[in-house]
Amino acid sequence: MVYQEESYLELENLFNPQSLAILGASGNKNKLGNMLIKSLIEGGFKGEIYPINPKTESIEGLDCFASVLDVPTEIDLAIFCVGADKVINGLQECARKNVKSAIIYASGFSEIGEAGEKEQQRVNQIAKQAGIRLIGPNCVGIVNTSNGLMATFSPGLTGVPENKQREVGFVTQSGAFGVLTYIAAAQNRLSFNYFVSVGNEVDTEFSDVIEYMLHDSNTSVISGYLEGEKSPHKLRQLAKQALDKNKPIVIMKAGRSNAGSKAAASHTGSLAGSDKIYDGLFKQTGIIRVDDYEDIIAFTKLFLSKKLPTGKNTAIVTSSGGRGINEADRCEAFGLKINPLNEKVKKDIEQNIPSYGSALNPIDLTAAAAVSNPELYIEPLKVLANDPETDIIIFTEFPMGWTEDNPSLKEFVDICRNTDKFILIATFPLEGMSIPKSADYLEQNGIPVIPGDLNPIRALKKLVQYSEKYEKNKRANEQTSPKISRKNELQLQPGATLSESQAADILDLYGIQTTKRAIALSLDEAVNQANTIGYPVVLKVDSPEIPHKTDAHAIALNISNEQQLRKTFNQILKNAKEYNPDAQINGISVQEMLPEGIEVIVGVTNDSVFGPVIMLGLGGVFVEVFQDTSFRIAPLTRNDAIEMIEELQSFPILKGFRGRDSVALEPIIDTLLKVSAFASDYGDAIKELDINPLIVYENKVVAADAMLVVQDSKKVLKIGG
Amino acid sequence: MVYQEESYLELENLFNPQSLAILGASGNKNKLGNMLIKSLIEGGFKGEIYPINPKTESIEGLDCFASVLDVPTEIDLAIFCVGADKVINGLQECARKNVKSAIIYASGFSEIGEAGEKEQQRVNQIAKQAGIRLIGPNCVGIVNTSNGLMATFSPGLTGVPENKQREVGFVTQSGAFGVLTYIAAAQNRLSFNYFVSVGNEVDTEFSDVIEYMLHDSNTSVISGYLEGEKSPHKLRQLAKQALDKNKPIVIMKAGRSNAGSKAAASHTGSLAGSDKIYDGLFKQTGIIRVDDYEDIIAFTKLFLSKKLPTGKNTAIVTSSGGRGINEADRCEAFGLKINPLNEKVKKDIEQNIPSYGSALNPIDLTAAAAVSNPELYIEPLKVLANDPETDIIIFTEFPMGWTEDNPSLKEFVDICRNTDKFILIATFPLEGMSIPKSADYLEQNGIPVIPGDLNPIRALKKLVQYSEKYEKNKRANEQTSPKISRKNELQLQPGATLSESQAADILDLYGIQTTKRAIALSLDEAVNQANTIGYPVVLKVDSPEIPHKTDAHAIALNISNEQQLRKTFNQILKNAKEYNPDAQINGISVQEMLPEGIEVIVGVTNDSVFGPVIMLGLGGVFVEVFQDTSFRIAPLTRNDAIEMIEELQSFPILKGFRGRDSVALEPIIDTLLKVSAFASDYGDAIKELDINPLIVYENKVVAADAMLVVQDSKKVLKIGG
Repeated sequence: MVYQEESYLELENLFNPQSLAILGASGNKNKLGNMLIKSLIEGGFKGEIYPINPKTESIEGLDCFASVLDVPTEIDLAIFCVGADKVINGLQECARKNVKSAIIYASGFSEIGEAGEKEQQRVNQIAKQAGIRLIGPNCVGIVNTSNGLMATFSPGLTGVPENKQREVGFVTQSGAFGVLTYIAAAQNRLSFNYFVSVGNEVDTEFSDVIEYMLHDSNTSVISGYLEGEKSPHKLRQLAKQALDKNKPIVIMKAGRSNAGSKAAASHTGSLAGSDKIYDGLFKQTGIIRVDDYEDIIAFTKLFLSKKLPTGKNTAIVTSSGGRGINEADRCEAFGLKINPLNEKVKKDIEQNIPSYGSALNPIDLTAAAAVSNPELYIEPLKVLANDPETDIIIFTEFPMGWTEDNPSLKEFVDICRNTDKFILIATFPLEGMSIPKSADYLEQNGIPVIPGDLNPIRALKKLVQYSEKYEKNKRANEQTSPKISRKNELQLQPGATLSESQAADILDLYGIQTTKRAIALSLDEAVNQANTIGYPVVLKVDSPEIPHKTDAHAIALNISNEQQLRKTFNQILKNAKEYNPDAQINGISVQEMLPEGIEVIVGVTNDSVFGPVIMLGLGGVFVEVFQDTSFRIAPLTRNDAIEMIEELQSFPILKGFRGRDSVALEPIIDTLLKVSAFASDYGDAIKELDINPLIVYENKVVAADAMLVVQDSKKVLKIGG
Repeated sequence: MVYQEESYLELENLFNPQSLAILGASGNKNKLGNMLIKSLIEGGFKGEIYPINPKTESIEGLDCFASVLDVPTEIDLAIFCVGADKVINGLQECARKNVKSAIIYASGFSEIGEAGEKEQQRVNQIAKQAGIRLIGPNCVGIVNTSNGLMATFSPGLTGVPENKQREVGFVTQSGAFGVLTYIAAAQNRLSFNYFVSVGNEVDTEFSDVIEYMLHDSNTSVISGYLEGEKSPHKLRQLAKQALDKNKPIVIMKAGRSNAGSKAAASHTGSLAGSDKIYDGLFKQTGIIRVDDYEDIIAFTKLFLSKKLPTGKNTAIVTSSGGRGINEADRCEAFGLKINPLNEKVKKDIEQNIPSYGSALNPIDLTAAAAVSNPELYIEPLKVLANDPETDIIIFTEFPMGWTEDNPSLKEFVDICRNTDKFILIATFPLEGMSIPKSADYLEQNGIPVIPGDLNPIRALKKLVQYSEKYEKNKRANEQTSPKISRKNELQLQPGATLSESQAADILDLYGIQTTKRAIALSLDEAVNQANTIGYPVVLKVDSPEIPHKTDAHAIALNISNEQQLRKTFNQILKNAKEYNPDAQINGISVQEMLPEGIEVIVGVTNDSVFGPVIMLGLGGVFVEVFQDTSFRIAPLTRNDAIEMIEELQSFPILKGFRGRDSVALEPIIDTLLKVSAFASDYGDAIKELDINPLIVYENKVVAADAMLVVQDSKKVLKIGG
């Protein structure tokens, strides 16, 4: 689907239809076409419902029609409760009737292979021609709890939830997993406003639904389950808008593993894209990536408190020493800070807890707080609420019996409401011990109550990250990498691997610092060039057909004088010819010998899903062993480049570590942005670019070696002004 | 407590008493001394119960006694339901009565500070003199469900569980956390046979209880919650015996984080020891370290299947595509292998599942298996049960309604019983969907059923690790590092930092390869020595007071001839004297210049809890940035040394990576064992030993630099023959 600014408005007919036609409506209680009608009636759907069935007069008290063409009014949404074999015919009738949208549940399309794929393309064609917006096929339907549109056959989704705080939209590429998430959320007192199973996404895609929710003013959080995004650049744009609006997008992206990724590709019938790139895209855009449905629920509950943590400094209040320690372990494991309280705060707390308690952090109120004296919770909270060194306060349990009329509860809530501290009650996940009586009241007042089995600390860390990203986005003026004006031209053969000097010439075009170098066609030329460049020098064969010069023994480092150069020159040429007699050799590249520095790698790959992707990694053997790399999709913003650097585990080495000099990060940022500019200009042509190593010094970087492989399928293309 | 082989037998009086005295017995239903008696009666305790209360004639139908001294028979166990102020007096009476053991619940001892500590020491003294074995004080008591000894006041622990499979002992340093674990286990259909809260461990320690359970033939799994082990070397011995017996010890060790570790130290009143060393100790001994009570429950349930996985190759069977992907992600994240099935297996499965299913791994039976056709589970299981390439089979759900009389269930169970594949049902953690009706029957037949919120895959990984360790232990003849006979002598000043050459001399004594070197007192001597050693050489000042030679500019590398040496020698001496005019300078150390290799660090630290601990790490700046280190407590076995190397994240670099030559691991193992021998001989004297770097080559290692710091408190000590 081409991304059009206002296309999401068309989805209004899907989510807020005034009139529905049910194809395959049935009087048989066990049939989908009956369950669905009942589900809509029980949900209190406000619009017209037109059952379509030529053999019946009325179903569930509603008049039946033989065909959609017989319905006297306009139809906003047609719901297909029919098998795959009856879809085309039904859709053709809908087209004639000018139906505006449709949901198709039936399986038997692209997910079963070639025959199904063909059928699906026909479905798509008919819908496109008639301007019908489609959900499905192969889905479990949609739910809009705000208007009772329970347009799903899943028994787990029927009945509008009682919980009135419904501001979370959920979109899923797996029907079953989505339904389970919906139920798990409900069991944890979280209700969605939208549930959308997108199925095979023949028309409406995952990101289209996100776009709709982004513009829906009743939705505060957009959540989803994703196996493979078809329009990552659209998602990137939407995520930027969502960040501007402080409307978080929290996505469980499945397929982190090899096997999972393969299964996802097979499940959705699409390319899944490299998982590491998803990681990069999500970080780039502030999309919160989670690993389980638990995180979706916990993160959302935290966000619905309508407070964002102002920092990472966390105080833990517990009534069990052991539990306090565990929670501290968990907080630190997830990057929150558990600092000792300052002396004043400590003393103030000590005065209000039993002598055998502890005012370290965690603060141990002792079992007295749990058993006999729940009021112990109040005074330490008061103190922490006014401690400028505390950002987050976590209670590992809460008085179970306090009800709304309890004055202590009121006091507790008042303190919480009047402080900017982020406050969380993270209870022990035991039946009968995890949900205090006042849980709903607390949450209505912005104090989330989350049992430990939902991993609230992990979710809290993600909220802190989101908060940082949100603040950064507010401050930053985010421009993607600027165009670079270039002068020269180069021609690239499709499928070619460029010689180092050719690749370096392109880097030069984009203003990336490369080594001083010259191509020598003879020994004497080499001697002259070395004199110009200055010893020590490096000699390398320059040939597109010999990319691995070390393997060919066609490289010599640290040549310190003419005598050495004369000895080496011919040897390299000889080795190169022996290694690959057919190689086209451009000459011998004479280069300055660079001093030692920190080696990093900058690369571009052309991903089948994401297009050009920029990679930064620590250089040498470590990049692979420690997998210390970061990815972002092109084009980069300046902030993307900075975050790529900061994200490296080896970032402390760049920052200057244990007496090592720090290096200036600006030249690395600059190089990343220039590489990004190149990738944006010629992304389609690049198969792979590797600057390896890019040597980083105190004040500059130099690309010491580079390789560029051109895409097979592209025509010869010109690079230049 | 000194570790005596048979001391655990004394604990028999605690866990299997024939007669009990209840000090502080009461007729008041709200008092501990009443609740306890009722708990014992309700638990069906078989022995005699003697309530002690001078003011009452009978409690709960039992005759009262004014004092333990009035009880007509011997007393095996006295239970103190009295406040801290009455403990000493009661204990003195117990001593006179020759009571054999006691449980003291009261708080108010070492955990409240100095005054309590004193009181606790008196308690200990009286008990030791009288030979009374104690549990507590400051504990919630003990439970032995096999004889109804419900000797606890915790309401969560009363009532003997109905579940008859009770073969899991549990010992805890946190009462509250322990009780919560006990309840959570029960809610997940797992019952413990022992529950032991050790409190302040004045007499019976955490490891004593482990020892008792180790020798208890009814216990198959020993589990525990630990904050700080007082006798790590005893625990090490016990763990070795447990591994020999295939009786796993699974411990949740709290205090991974800084804050958590500090809080643990404060909570137990003891030094907590470095968490990284616990990690090492646990790996060394096969103790399964877990991070949450969930893992204790899940691991134990897996082990109670009485099968061990024979490998990591895992097949996933699911009825939901999405769920299969998630489970595959989870398996790979935890190091299990999800390989594609071989063609034959794939075809055999494809014949027995719907056409829109998938016989990739994960195997997707489709929703048909969940909804209409549960028999779909049988045939794929048959195929996998005979697949030599599969070790583990995971079902992500199971037919909910199958009961014991269902022939399909019987068939399923029969297949499982007749294969060595490890089979796990890991269900989605939703109320009403996680526990199939047949769960108990399945588990009785060795097929664990574990809801996803208990993280069964994480626990499964730990079972695979345990299985590997168990097999290795069976094969290996594990000797700790052999004594090394030494010839020379050296004297060490307490608190001294040794010069490099002094430290190297000690390494020589233990047969550790050091650089060729000599101490030159004059320039001419240095020239002669350099000629003997051979150029290029290194010059370093040799002084205990200048350990950081680079900072002092008192080191010069790569000196290639006499002329350079002459120029450098005096400069180094000058720099050293300027850097520290008071330094005692032994001379200039002339050393061979070592070629480049892979740098690692080998170190010894003397931990206050564990004694000498050996460390191995990747060298240079990376050791700190990537924290790529492994720890083991001394003495090492050969296998410990091997595992230390294999555990490093950078192990692939040592093994030879991407065209790099591999290095022989034997010299590294040898060095670790020699360092271990030194640490065992003189562990008390060593404060810190650092071999940094130990340079690793293809066939050898060389200690290129070393530092040794001697403990402050020790007298001058002789090292030698």
